[in-house]
Amino acid sequence: MSKKPIHQAREIKTHSIPVPESVSPRMQAIIAKPPDPAFNVAPRTNAEWKARVAETARKVEATLPKLREALGVSVDPTVIAGVKVFNVTPASVPSDNRDRLLLHFHGGTRVSNPGAAGTREAILMAGFCGYRIISVDYRMPPDFPFPAALDDAVAVYRDVLQTTDAGKIGFFGTSAGGSLAFTTLLRARAEGLPMPGAMAPGTPTVDLTDEGDSLYTNVFADNVLGTRDGFIRATVQLYAEGRDLKDPLLSPIYGDLKGFPPTILTSGTRDLYLSNTVRMHRKLRAAGVDAALQIWEGQSHTQYMADIAAPETKEYHGEVMRFFDLHLG
Amino acid sequence: MSKKPIHQAREIKTHSIPVPESVSPRMQAIIAKPPDPAFNVAPRTNAEWKARVAETARKVEATLPKLREALGVSVDPTVIAGVKVFNVTPASVPSDNRDRLLLHFHGGTRVSNPGAAGTREAILMAGFCGYRIISVDYRMPPDFPFPAALDDAVAVYRDVLQTTDAGKIGFFGTSAGGSLAFTTLLRARAEGLPMPGAMAPGTPTVDLTDEGDSLYTNVFADNVLGTRDGFIRATVQLYAEGRDLKDPLLSPIYGDLKGFPPTILTSGTRDLYLSNTVRMHRKLRAAGVDAALQIWEGQSHTQYMADIAAPETKEYHGEVMRFFDLHLG
Repeated sequence: MSKKPIHQAREIKTHSIPVPESVSPRMQAIIAKPPDPAFNVAPRTNAEWKARVAETARKVEATLPKLREALGVSVDPTVIAGVKVFNVTPASVPSDNRDRLLLHFHGGTRVSNPGAAGTREAILMAGFCGYRIISVDYRMPPDFPFPAALDDAVAVYRDVLQTTDAGKIGFFGTSAGGSLAFTTLLRARAEGLPMPGAMAPGTPTVDLTDEGDSLYTNVFADNVLGTRDGFIRATVQLYAEGRDLKDPLLSPIYGDLKGFPPTILTSGTRDLYLSNTVRMHRKLRAAGVDAALQIWEGQSHTQYMADIAAPETKEYHGEVMRFFDLHLG
Repeated sequence: MSKKPIHQAREIKTHSIPVPESVSPRMQAIIAKPPDPAFNVAPRTNAEWKARVAETARKVEATLPKLREALGVSVDPTVIAGVKVFNVTPASVPSDNRDRLLLHFHGGTRVSNPGAAGTREAILMAGFCGYRIISVDYRMPPDFPFPAALDDAVAVYRDVLQTTDAGKIGFFGTSAGGSLAFTTLLRARAEGLPMPGAMAPGTPTVDLTDEGDSLYTNVFADNVLGTRDGFIRATVQLYAEGRDLKDPLLSPIYGDLKGFPPTILTSGTRDLYLSNTVRMHRKLRAAGVDAALQIWEGQSHTQYMADIAAPETKEYHGEVMRFFDLHLG
């Protein structure tokens, strides 16, 4: 950080953090894992980025056939408004959900989870909650930096509005996908499009600057991300290419959130992006938005959906389902 | 901790936590203060406990005349059902609040803030929100351990119910007071009393065992409490006197929360009791309770009411007021 702070930072001495015993045994096993040291290594060339992204995507994709089968969900690629998407459909759609549609923006630090790898979150949401989902396979760096992802998201939303009432559309997404859901709303409003009925961003990375207390207090307590240094910081540069990170279309926490739809936000106590999440909740509330917050004990970034057999995963989806059911016409 | 954990604890290395710049300058100054080293020193005799409690109470009381004047609040001692209480009254009561009454249970780790020192939170609530409040000056250790405080709280609630509709009564309290609000509900229900209309526990210490991830992850990041070792652990012994700490009347998180009234819970990202708060939120939601959560960036234990000039303090009270207005008949 180059700016000179007004107040002195505090030093936190070496200490030990046990795995909480109040969470389920499945979640205890997830929390107990040490951070992946490779996560903090940043690729140096476009070729290295692509290799890294491809390797991660292969690993995720390898888990999907079993996941789709376990949850009875089908995933079909198609194209909407020139943008690659996946139709993600549960085995049966409850009658209340026949006219409803969720738009999904996958996570992956704005660079990861291209193609089918991006559908994992949507498979869980379709399987646990019974919604029809369109998952947007938006373009990403290094080939397509900002604003390609945003262009794609808005194009799909605009197209979907031709056949579905805005009030019956819900947005959801995790991490970078949660942030893209917010920036899509900012752009949609600027272009005169109506707001969707509700949204469910999970641990959205809504601030690409160094601000956010939990980036420091939860360093290496978060075993998914470890630290913002290294890989994450490099993804921000790759995506933003030197633009002002306080541009609301990059960091929607700096945007005008008035008139945004009812929103349920999710994070965990060990999440590096806990502060991003709770700050966005406060900003939404201050803007008069009907915004709810749920924080999960001991969980790091995105772990509310780490394991479909963990009771916390089912409970998380139950909360989101109740929220959507309440607000989607 | 004597029990043997299943999973290995993780070591978090020495690191630095800067003061977040996204919060108000007033709040930055509060967050920047180093933890009070004296807080972690436990008194060893009853005489030492009383001297420590009296010293803290004197300091708090010294701030109250100016606070009452600034917020236009009057505080008058009286007795209800044999229990010492304070009537805490704003200069003017909005017409919507004429029939409403808040019952206040002060914080202070179950041993501190006797007498007028316990009214500080109530003065803020009356001043910012315009409610009539009865603040319960419940008995405390070392002279009066569990269940004296609970007996007093239930006695006052039972008496108040003779003249006020349960649905127009709100409970609130901070830390130990937030927990006492929950145990009062457990006891009230067992005794056949109706539930109040709503409640607003702030960072409630609902689990007196060693469970709660933020007790470890936020150690010394919380500059109000520092660590649970030392003073806090000693207060638990003083209050519970060797009883099973999982008794729901000591640790209400282990109680049956079905049928509890709408509840808004508050904590901060650096709070040692962040985990107590979010776990209680989850338990309430799982029990079907209309429970809301707000978490404040960078704040340690109880700092949502540390400074009446901080915009966060006003915003906190605004949220609680909207919640009570929605749910108190």
